[in-house]
Amino acid sequence: MEEMSRWPIFDPHSHIDPRRPAARNFDEVLGYHYYTELAHASGMPTERVDSALDPRTRAQNLAEHLSAVDNTVQYSWLVEIARTFHQFPHDRITPANVGGLFDKALHENDGPSWDLHVWKQSRLEAVFLTNEFDDDLEGWDASAYIPCLRTDDLVLKLHEPRTVERLRRTTNVDVIDLASLRQAITVLFDRFTKKGARACAISLPPDFVPHRAAPRRAVTPVRRAIQGLDLRPDEHSEIRATVFWMLAEHCAEFKLPFDLMIGPIRNVYPAGVAGGRDLFDRRVSLYDYRDLFNHFASVVFPVSTLSPDAGAELVAYSWIFPNVLPMGHWWYSNVPAFIAADLKARIQALPKVKLLGYYSDAYKLEFILPKFNMYRRILAETLAGEAIGKQGWTIDRALELARLVLLDNPRRVFGMKPQGSRS
Amino acid sequence: MEEMSRWPIFDPHSHIDPRRPAARNFDEVLGYHYYTELAHASGMPTERVDSALDPRTRAQNLAEHLSAVDNTVQYSWLVEIARTFHQFPHDRITPANVGGLFDKALHENDGPSWDLHVWKQSRLEAVFLTNEFDDDLEGWDASAYIPCLRTDDLVLKLHEPRTVERLRRTTNVDVIDLASLRQAITVLFDRFTKKGARACAISLPPDFVPHRAAPRRAVTPVRRAIQGLDLRPDEHSEIRATVFWMLAEHCAEFKLPFDLMIGPIRNVYPAGVAGGRDLFDRRVSLYDYRDLFNHFASVVFPVSTLSPDAGAELVAYSWIFPNVLPMGHWWYSNVPAFIAADLKARIQALPKVKLLGYYSDAYKLEFILPKFNMYRRILAETLAGEAIGKQGWTIDRALELARLVLLDNPRRVFGMKPQGSRS
Amino acid sequence: MEEMSRWPIFDPHSHIDPRRPAARNFDEVLGYHYYTELAHASGMPTERVDSALDPRTRAQNLAEHLSAVDNTVQYSWLVEIARTFHQFPHDRITPANVGGLFDKALHENDGPSWDLHVWKQSRLEAVFLTNEFDDDLEGWDASAYIPCLRTDDLVLKLHEPRTVERLRRTTNVDVIDLASLRQAITVLFDRFTKKGARACAISLPPDFVPHRAAPRRAVTPVRRAIQGLDLRPDEHSEIRATVFWMLAEHCAEFKLPFDLMIGPIRNVYPAGVAGGRDLFDRRVSLYDYRDLFNHFASVVFPVSTLSPDAGAELVAYSWIFPNVLPMGHWWYSNVPAFIAADLKARIQALPKVKLLGYYSDAYKLEFILPKFNMYRRILAETLAGEAIGKQGWTIDRALELARLVLLDNPRRVFGMKPQGSRS
Repeated sequence: MEEMSRWPIFDPHSHIDPRRPAARNFDEVLGYHYYTELAHASGMPTERVDSALDPRTRAQNLAEHLSAVDNTVQYSWLVEIARTFHQFPHDRITPANVGGLFDKALHENDGPSWDLHVWKQSRLEAVFLTNEFDDDLEGWDASAYIPCLRTDDLVLKLHEPRTVERLRRTTNVDVIDLASLRQAITVLFDRFTKKGARACAISLPPDFVPHRAAPRRAVTPVRRAIQGLDLRPDEHSEIRATVFWMLAEHCAEFKLPFDLMIGPIRNVYPAGVAGGRDLFDRRVSLYDYRDLFNHFASVVFPVSTLSPDAGAELVAYSWIFPNVLPMGHWWYSNVPAFIAADLKARIQALPKVKLLGYYSDAYKLEFILPKFNMYRRILAETLAGEAIGKQGWTIDRALELARLVLLDNPRRVFGMKPQGSRS
Repeated sequence: MEEMSRWPIFDPHSHIDPRRPAARNFDEVLGYHYYTELAHASGMPTERVDSALDPRTRAQNLAEHLSAVDNTVQYSWLVEIARTFHQFPHDRITPANVGGLFDKALHENDGPSWDLHVWKQSRLEAVFLTNEFDDDLEGWDASAYIPCLRTDDLVLKLHEPRTVERLRRTTNVDVIDLASLRQAITVLFDRFTKKGARACAISLPPDFVPHRAAPRRAVTPVRRAIQGLDLRPDEHSEIRATVFWMLAEHCAEFKLPFDLMIGPIRNVYPAGVAGGRDLFDRRVSLYDYRDLFNHFASVVFPVSTLSPDAGAELVAYSWIFPNVLPMGHWWYSNVPAFIAADLKARIQALPKVKLLGYYSDAYKLEFILPKFNMYRRILAETLAGEAIGKQGWTIDRALELARLVLLDNPRRVFGMKPQGSRS
Repeated sequence: MEEMSRWPIFDPHSHIDPRRPAARNFDEVLGYHYYTELAHASGMPTERVDSALDPRTRAQNLAEHLSAVDNTVQYSWLVEIARTFHQFPHDRITPANVGGLFDKALHENDGPSWDLHVWKQSRLEAVFLTNEFDDDLEGWDASAYIPCLRTDDLVLKLHEPRTVERLRRTTNVDVIDLASLRQAITVLFDRFTKKGARACAISLPPDFVPHRAAPRRAVTPVRRAIQGLDLRPDEHSEIRATVFWMLAEHCAEFKLPFDLMIGPIRNVYPAGVAGGRDLFDRRVSLYDYRDLFNHFASVVFPVSTLSPDAGAELVAYSWIFPNVLPMGHWWYSNVPAFIAADLKARIQALPKVKLLGYYSDAYKLEFILPKFNMYRRILAETLAGEAIGKQGWTIDRALELARLVLLDNPRRVFGMKPQGSRS
């Protein structure tokens, strides 16, 4: 573990804003939906973290509810951030000490240098972004903050006028039908890859079933969707499958990995805090993805699955399909108990060259280090217990595997050369 | 663990008969369905534990089959009961020593004082009951044995004439339609809460999907059900949803937690022993309960889920919904391997103020202690390994969490003040 | 563990060819689909292990891809085979040393004596086979290699002309309708049991739902299937259920255990290597089997389930149904992480007399020992940690349980007397 903590961090999925990567104040740390939703789930009214409040008040309000969740692993990241980056001397963040912490963590005036400080202290090497398709991808160092084309809106919201409007504006293609939609998507992939994008990504609900597109069947529903007309459920379904398949075709053509994040249902709890309204239905299977995996043999699919009990199936599919790779431990599965169980099975049953360790999913740079430290600790424990303890591996052999999982595999799969940290 | 074993026990769900809480003889202990069903599952004919046999014979018969299950955790409760309450000196209960044990455990003539003895030796503080809706709730100390309104029959068996008959008799309401059904249910809630009830409870099959009641749609099926007429499947479904929703409305009005016990299918194995015929279909999801959780924001739903692999989803739903609380480890999930996995995830990912540790589900008072001891052991191991070992918690901090889980949270959620044991 | 490793091995399910049980060369070891599919899943083209290649070349080719999977438990069996049976001195099999290993492992000219050597060194007692229904069952010692009637083709492929053709030829019954189909199946059971068969076995897809046969409903579809006519999906379904039910009736009549291996879907990945194309849909439940388990109370059903997350449900069904026994840890579940979790729950919750430990599923004799050693290690760890460590069992008591699980139960359930190893 000490050895691993000296390694650089390669983070293949985050929601970092590259123009403002680190938190400018501690409210931006506390505002992470993990805290607001856990506090809300334990009784805090949403108004206490209203976006209209000023940051210090909002931080103070939230701090009053943190004691209810100070047992959680999510809370432990918070304390690690405070202690690592802000010289916070305490074990818990309380209403009494959050003010001082807020003062220490204020970087409104030295933003870019603070970004660099966090980047270096965390030994970051590359951080993948989540870019909307109409992001202009300008204004940051794309060798550090790697663009990634997020495509949920294209697949799931093509029927919303705003989506088509955004697509027209960003591509200059007059999107009116299936053919022009394809043209526009080609423009997107061309722009993104030229700007250094290394992945296409999408999150998909549990009832989504990809199937081979039948352009003849899809042409009318797609045109109706673009025109903003009402759609029947089967038309919605046809449109989603068609656009999704088109994206996969572009991943093949542009040689981009296609990150599949399977499971979430949006807005299951509408009265929740921002970012804390989505859940899932655990009745989901990768069997629904067989046509996709078979058809696109040349596309690499790093797969995350949301329901913790679906992790074992992902092991089996990664074991058989060359193009299916188990990626990270996502969201509701990002809990040590679930990570440890999944990781043990992955290490025992899957080719080591396919293991894509972990990603932060973070919104602010500060979270990458504590999250990766959590994962590295679990990885170290797993290797110590299983590989060294039971299989008789040497420490070097265990570290070699850890390095593959954390660095070599993600770098190779996402087409990155090893490189030093940003200087 | 030694510390925890000195704490009182707060047991928020049992099937204890408050008029006869402790076993009067050892046949009442051995008659627990866990033993008869395990013995039957390993080859014992049901006739050997026929209810027509005299208790001593039945105990002797069962003892002949116990060696087949002496590896199980269920068996370990039995030995702990024998050793703790009956000075049983052996490690295993055999046909040769069960007679002596039966003699020692005979309390037909000193029932109430034996009840008190078990209560005190177990350091019980409160034991929640399972009361049928037509229970008169008379004849016991309701500050020790807390009434709880069990509503399975109302929701799932309204079409059986006996149910309506019982409802009319116990409420004096002439139940003939939806409106009078509601009146009767109000009478029930009024009576139960006045008698000190602290929860409404129900067990629901995996295919049950609560949805907002549409009185106009339900009025005819409900009337037909009450009249005992034949019903179509969709009418059955409408009636169940309607009555269930009405119960939730009453929980809101009367400020009662609504215990949801999700999963069982009754009588899957009709040839089984009494209490040993029910199983489940593991394809179940809390996503089906979203409308309920959203609509009744003011109602607390302590949720138990039957299929062990459904436990991870309950963690996610408790993480987001303020009114969903993970409760105990139920029935087929009440096995150390499953408890440990679930508990670890709950402690790592959920607000500590929401953790409703454990309940006994017991039919006789003697079982509460060994079951809670099993749980307290697992809790102690989890805290020692994860919190103290890996997170660096102090023992005091770990004990503080244990106390919340075992005592403070259940007391608060079920509206009980801390109190000494019954004197 | 040392104690257990001196015990004989009783292996109630394998794919050993009794006429050629041990590998004649190391290509037959490396050709096990676990290696070819893992190598392929990590990038090896299928052509590299083409069946047209000569064995040495194929072994050399595969060895070039083994480093990608040298972390897996499957790989550890390989090294254990090389070290145990072929004096291989290294820790890893590489392109550089595979040639020497190939030379050492060459037994084309001393096949039968090599078979006996592996048998004895592994302390094998009995190895169950997987015999197609038209196997003539001649040419081997049936007290060592136990015949087992595999029935997938009869249930799932009755509509293929070849199946009926094979059935007619092997039974001399002119199979033309339901009645003659039953006659033919009776002939099969008669022949198999006379030859010493100890089990009937079948693997079933996750959407298969057994139901009581309705001969009147089935008579026409079955005749149409036998005539090779086109069938509607509901007819396929009726035929499958009917033939399956007929097999269960014969298991009852001939007193054969009926091994159910639930879950696989064939050919999900058609471009995979031989044996590496099947996967599953994790949405499966034993609830679908209730009619079967209820109706055939006298038939023992040793059940394996493919999806690792379905293991907990099998614990519950084995807990209730006398005729349902949890058997082994199958295929994608045959990974230490999954075995350990399942085994712990089985030992804690199920009658010890019902635990059917493990089977090798092996195609070559050499695999039985390392696979059983893996299982025995996990069993030893589980007993040491849970039973001895936490329940205070003596080592003797733990070993007694281990012996039941590994030897006494399988021997009894499959109707075998204890016996020495083949001499």
